[in-house]
Amino acid sequence: MEHTSIGSKVWVIPEGYIPGESTGPQPAMTSHETFCVLNTGVVAAELDITIYFSDRDPVGPYHLTVPAHRTRHVRFNDLQKPEPVPKDTDYSSVIVSDQPIVVQHTRLDSREPANALLSTIAYPVPGQ
Amino acid sequence: MEHTSIGSKVWVIPEGYIPGESTGPQPAMTSHETFCVLNTGVVAAELDITIYFSDRDPVGPYHLTVPAHRTRHVRFNDLQKPEPVPKDTDYSSVIVSDQPIVVQHTRLDSREPANALLSTIAYPVPGQ
Amino acid sequence: MEHTSIGSKVWVIPEGYIPGESTGPQPAMTSHETFCVLNTGVVAAELDITIYFSDRDPVGPYHLTVPAHRTRHVRFNDLQKPEPVPKDTDYSSVIVSDQPIVVQHTRLDSREPANALLSTIAYPVPGQ
Amino acid sequence: MEHTSIGSKVWVIPEGYIPGESTGPQPAMTSHETFCVLNTGVVAAELDITIYFSDRDPVGPYHLTVPAHRTRHVRFNDLQKPEPVPKDTDYSSVIVSDQPIVVQHTRLDSREPANALLSTIAYPVPGQ
Repeated sequence: MEHTSIGSKVWVIPEGYIPGESTGPQPAMTSHETFCVLNTGVVAAELDITIYFSDRDPVGPYHLTVPAHRTRHVRFNDLQKPEPVPKDTDYSSVIVSDQPIVVQHTRLDSREPANALLSTIAYPVPGQ
Repeated sequence: MEHTSIGSKVWVIPEGYIPGESTGPQPAMTSHETFCVLNTGVVAAELDITIYFSDRDPVGPYHLTVPAHRTRHVRFNDLQKPEPVPKDTDYSSVIVSDQPIVVQHTRLDSREPANALLSTIAYPVPGQ
Repeated sequence: MEHTSIGSKVWVIPEGYIPGESTGPQPAMTSHETFCVLNTGVVAAELDITIYFSDRDPVGPYHLTVPAHRTRHVRFNDLQKPEPVPKDTDYSSVIVSDQPIVVQHTRLDSREPANALLSTIAYPVPGQ
Repeated sequence: MEHTSIGSKVWVIPEGYIPGESTGPQPAMTSHETFCVLNTGVVAAELDITIYFSDRDPVGPYHLTVPAHRTRHVRFNDLQKPEPVPKDTDYSSVIVSDQPIVVQHTRLDSREPANALLSTIAYPVPGQ
């Protein structure tokens, strides 16, 4: 089973927001916004990520590779090309892959001394 | 891909509750309940939101526009017409759009000095 | 739209755990486990809830009514018949309704001075 | 209804990370990563779990049984064979069952004095 492709090729995360402040030991406790990708297939997955904003045109694609039989936990904070994802700014993301993948969204918010977590499976576009 | 319509036209968020108290710097840390909408299509999406309560008839529609290729992160706290959403009150919401959209629900609860977060992709009504 | 039935008739929440301790003002900050039900239809929904355990037979049904056009946010802490849901105990729940409904699961954990929140749309059984 | 099989046979949790540190009373407040399984059917479910990493081949299967009409809340921390799941390491998991089940993912992060929670229904592979 572990060598079969699982999932969808298009995923959506409407909520996106990287808090500009952090407390606690860095970088583990840096406020961040993450998407976790699992590629169970035998072929590397090539991903194109587009970032949507509330007041300007979308930016992208950001390109990433997830090797066969591997997971990759990506911080939006670390996306650099074509431009860094701005902090303290509302955004959304669409992830398009050439192979089936599964995507989960997580945020660690450490603006206060006690960190807060949220997570959800992203939205898989049906029939993709 | 980023210019294709993605999602469903009807979304449901059964959980709704705006805490009446907040701590921390305002308005970033004001306790709030948010729904994030992504419209990946080429046409602006017109949204009608209905709020359901436990002890009285539904209120709405609240009307919002999400422009083409844009996201909009909306605080229920900010909905004003036909009437503000009451605090410290259980509610649910149904979001109907004339274009396919994707919706995610998030709450920041800052009643205690340490904030708490929850989030989930809303429920997309199948076949809509 | 607000007078149409929306959702599924069978929902599952695999995670269940009511923390036995709480801090903060009661009952708002009492540690609790909640399921929120929305009935958008014109007929009252009759619900039967069954609680599953790790080491004994299921208990139920617990019966609840959600009136037409209403939401009901139910604390598992408040279920009493046929027996209270035990604290500090792993459980799961299955919610069966005679009308389509939408269900979301939320927990407030206030064992520590700072409360923590989790939430997810429950699992709708397809084709029900 | 409670004696019918419900769910899917293949579930995916892309996000996995066991924090290496904890605060508060142990073991209740030990940082942990959990998946909760519900088996509503009349036959015990035999589960094979495979753990995926970012930089090496998948490990597994880890084998578990969930008896008929029972739930089982499993801490990834407790999986031992073929090898313990490493802490402070990104991973993903795929859960394959010979019977339909429903799976939810939860993390308690107690690295800071205030604990944080996240949870989501796992991703059910359609048609399985």
